Amino acid sequence: MREINGSTQIFGILADPIHHVKTPQRINQLFAERQIDGVMVPVHVKPEGLAQAVQGLRTLQNLGGFVVTVPHKTAIVALCDEMTPEARLIGAVNVVRRTADGRLVGGMLDGEGFVSGLRSQGLEPAGRSVYLAGAGGAASAIAFALAGAGVRRLTIANRTADKAQQLIDRIASHFPALSLAVGSEDPAGHELVVNGTSLGLHPGDALPLNVDCLEPQQIVAEIIMQPAETPLLRAAQAKGCRVHFGAPMLSSQIALMAAFMRGATPAEGT
Amino acid sequence: MREINGSTQIFGILADPIHHVKTPQRINQLFAERQIDGVMVPVHVKPEGLAQAVQGLRTLQNLGGFVVTVPHKTAIVALCDEMTPEARLIGAVNVVRRTADGRLVGGMLDGEGFVSGLRSQGLEPAGRSVYLAGAGGAASAIAFALAGAGVRRLTIANRTADKAQQLIDRIASHFPALSLAVGSEDPAGHELVVNGTSLGLHPGDALPLNVDCLEPQQIVAEIIMQPAETPLLRAAQAKGCRVHFGAPMLSSQIALMAAFMRGATPAEGT
Repeated sequence: MREINGSTQIFGILADPIHHVKTPQRINQLFAERQIDGVMVPVHVKPEGLAQAVQGLRTLQNLGGFVVTVPHKTAIVALCDEMTPEARLIGAVNVVRRTADGRLVGGMLDGEGFVSGLRSQGLEPAGRSVYLAGAGGAASAIAFALAGAGVRRLTIANRTADKAQQLIDRIASHFPALSLAVGSEDPAGHELVVNGTSLGLHPGDALPLNVDCLEPQQIVAEIIMQPAETPLLRAAQAKGCRVHFGAPMLSSQIALMAAFMRGATPAEGT
Repeated sequence: MREINGSTQIFGILADPIHHVKTPQRINQLFAERQIDGVMVPVHVKPEGLAQAVQGLRTLQNLGGFVVTVPHKTAIVALCDEMTPEARLIGAVNVVRRTADGRLVGGMLDGEGFVSGLRSQGLEPAGRSVYLAGAGGAASAIAFALAGAGVRRLTIANRTADKAQQLIDRIASHFPALSLAVGSEDPAGHELVVNGTSLGLHPGDALPLNVDCLEPQQIVAEIIMQPAETPLLRAAQAKGCRVHFGAPMLSSQIALMAAFMRGATPAEGT
């Protein structure tokens, strides 16, 4: 780590609980590698203190921005002065840039991080047929990013089919040429299968899709980082599928978040 | 520097401007030496944003506290929930501890830092006759700390004699046994001569006292750190006096501030 001095720009990650966060370690390593005079610290904020905390952070002249994670990703929206199109579409923010005049610009990089993570492993989603399990916050972000990345076909499956249909309607209004459908628990017939739910995070969770229907030529991707090997990925490997772990999504987001908070455009951040 | 992780306790220094601060470097070095999982970052707050910034900092659950410096030392008083006797007496705060329930306790360690700095150089003020130039914030803190340290006699000289008298009256009410007097610009007859003004900070400043009256057996002490060798100290050296630089006051305060913010009692901090 670089020595912190009076000119060091400060960054935070807002979370509750805070102890488990890994983003400060990753961002500070990136700052050190790139010789950026910045530091990220953990900022433990409870939900009831979020508005007051953010109003305070807004006044800190040397604050570059902050990452936002559980449970603040939705509540932070109302506290931002401006949002990127991605954050507006998804209705959630996971990174905030503070402008020189104290305005807060919210961004949502989960989807871009996922797509960037795929590419970091040599998996280009453009032109592919994709099956996505889930229609919640993370899945929505990924769905929009996959649409933006130029997938050929996107099928969204969700326990509550209505929610999948609503997400599809929102995507359709922005990507009218994309082939979209509500799916069942059967992912067969798609090239890329993505788990965008939190199923697999906890022992005993149900599977996010019917693994009996997986096909060996499919690529099966996770957004869950811990455990690295979810029951879905184990089943996929048993079927002979190529698997894509959750870790690259975070790794890719680190660079994207640093660029966003430091005021780079998304293009500069990739 | 230690790696920052999710369990790292955070500390700040509030200042405007911020670039020149050296406290983060010193505190972080102390944390590293003592294997304390904490980090201090510079926090640039403008006077008009101080209240909002502090209300925000109050909500940060993993904030241990913050150092307060120019220009916030007086304005911060109204934002603290509680103050140490020293801070109340002096009407200024240079360090704040955040308690677990979000209360802010203000302390003023300038005086204790000065006395501790003297002792670190083998100079025990107890039992001495002291001449102090100045009756402003820093001088007041030093005067109370010298009184508390058990000096035998304290003479306070100030351009505006009324202000010296007011300070003496306040000290007398807390230390009724101490021999106190308003002094002239002549420091003769005292063992320890202290500059508690900012004269000497800028080129062309007037001298804080009449250096022609200095006596070779006197010890002449500065609170100015930059330049290390003020015109007063140069004149004192020319007269054959032992000099005491401004730096030990800061060095001593670093440990005192760290202890205060981490919840140690003043006794533990020394």
